[in-house]
Amino acid sequence: MLRIIKIGGNIIDNPAKLQAFLKAFALLDGPKILVHGGGKIASEFGEKLGIRAKMHNGRRITDRETLDLVTMVYAGLINKNIVAGLQANQCNAIGLSGADANSLLARKRPIKEVDFGFVGDVVEGGVQNSWIKTLLDSGLCPVFCPITHDGTGCLLNTNADTIASQLAVAMAGYGETELIYCFEKKGVLSNVDDDDSVIHEINRAEFNKLLEQGIIADGMIPKLENALHSVERGVKQVRIMDASELGRLSQGLPVGTVIL
Amino acid sequence: MLRIIKIGGNIIDNPAKLQAFLKAFALLDGPKILVHGGGKIASEFGEKLGIRAKMHNGRRITDRETLDLVTMVYAGLINKNIVAGLQANQCNAIGLSGADANSLLARKRPIKEVDFGFVGDVVEGGVQNSWIKTLLDSGLCPVFCPITHDGTGCLLNTNADTIASQLAVAMAGYGETELIYCFEKKGVLSNVDDDDSVIHEINRAEFNKLLEQGIIADGMIPKLENALHSVERGVKQVRIMDASELGRLSQGLPVGTVIL
Repeated sequence: MLRIIKIGGNIIDNPAKLQAFLKAFALLDGPKILVHGGGKIASEFGEKLGIRAKMHNGRRITDRETLDLVTMVYAGLINKNIVAGLQANQCNAIGLSGADANSLLARKRPIKEVDFGFVGDVVEGGVQNSWIKTLLDSGLCPVFCPITHDGTGCLLNTNADTIASQLAVAMAGYGETELIYCFEKKGVLSNVDDDDSVIHEINRAEFNKLLEQGIIADGMIPKLENALHSVERGVKQVRIMDASELGRLSQGLPVGTVIL
Repeated sequence: MLRIIKIGGNIIDNPAKLQAFLKAFALLDGPKILVHGGGKIASEFGEKLGIRAKMHNGRRITDRETLDLVTMVYAGLINKNIVAGLQANQCNAIGLSGADANSLLARKRPIKEVDFGFVGDVVEGGVQNSWIKTLLDSGLCPVFCPITHDGTGCLLNTNADTIASQLAVAMAGYGETELIYCFEKKGVLSNVDDDDSVIHEINRAEFNKLLEQGIIADGMIPKLENALHSVERGVKQVRIMDASELGRLSQGLPVGTVIL
């Protein structure tokens, strides 16, 4: 089974956690793809460079200088250090932006009330899955940063969660695919005050019941909606888990919440 | 014939020149590899970030923060914009650092009188030529930035001219290879005051004669020594030319100085 694993700021921003994650990731058997987000490093460099984060309703606006900043930090600093770290753990990683080998073709988000700037969404059919399959078949592990391109020479800032989901859907045609989101909790909790109250499996019917009972709320709703959407589009399962439990996963132990 | 073309700051720092170059490069027939250097952009960002360039006898010392800076600028900003620009010109480019697919394995330069920091040299046999051959055979155009890795998770700053030469030598085993250095002149000049006095061909005997006559001097001596060295190690020819004449090259016209 192909695994597509997405990590975000809580791992990227913590060197010790990142090293432990890369070690465990390298040990995972079978074909795998890593997708990483940004983290605080971009904001830190942005501040030093005098680039103020521009937000609208909590969402970042990517102007030209912010695009340059995230291209440097995501595609350069973070991506290449992750690749070198995986190489050190005998995992033959190859870092990619969507521009590389035209692997993720996106379109700038249309301007409605707000111009979000150089933010793009991968277009339908925009994932070069046959080429990614070739990489996997030759034993390489693609590592995607959240930078895509529009085919006319313009780079675009793209949501890493969405890239992971679109990769998983596009690769599902070749065989079983599992999409894994690493986050700061062990999984979806039945009791927010108990970190160990992980719900092991959720399907659409179960989701509706949990939603009704108010057990799933806030930011967890879109996360699970997206997960169910991926499953309905052909992904075998989506797992939400704590990155530090990746070692347990390679041992075949139950980890996190599986959305079926 | 495989062409390995190296461009430096005089093109990278000039957006109009860079766009014209990428267009002409995309039109070049046959397999090709692009190697790019750094340019002033890294120093500009370095200044904004308060990272002062540390030099010893005119050579840069790459401390930890400088390494992060060049990784961001070379592997991120410059590399991904070049790749997106080539994609816009229908050239299926893939940007690579030496860490990606372990393509260029290097070793930190040993400390003698001076510690140059995170500067590395590609080791003997460190070019993954069979993998690069696979990329070329599948119609991709590798675009290398001057960042390599040491296999233990450490990225290294490596001279782009040397990377180009080592790639050319390593690929020569597969067939005829031409190494092209783009610089600010039309070629090696017989009269420094006449930009059109290009010497069309130079071999080792001719080089010795020109050296004796004082026609070749200063920075041109190591350039030609390196070129002759590449030829002696199996590269069919080395060409030194002005990037703006790349269009003439695809038309089969005589361009620059060819070292045989």
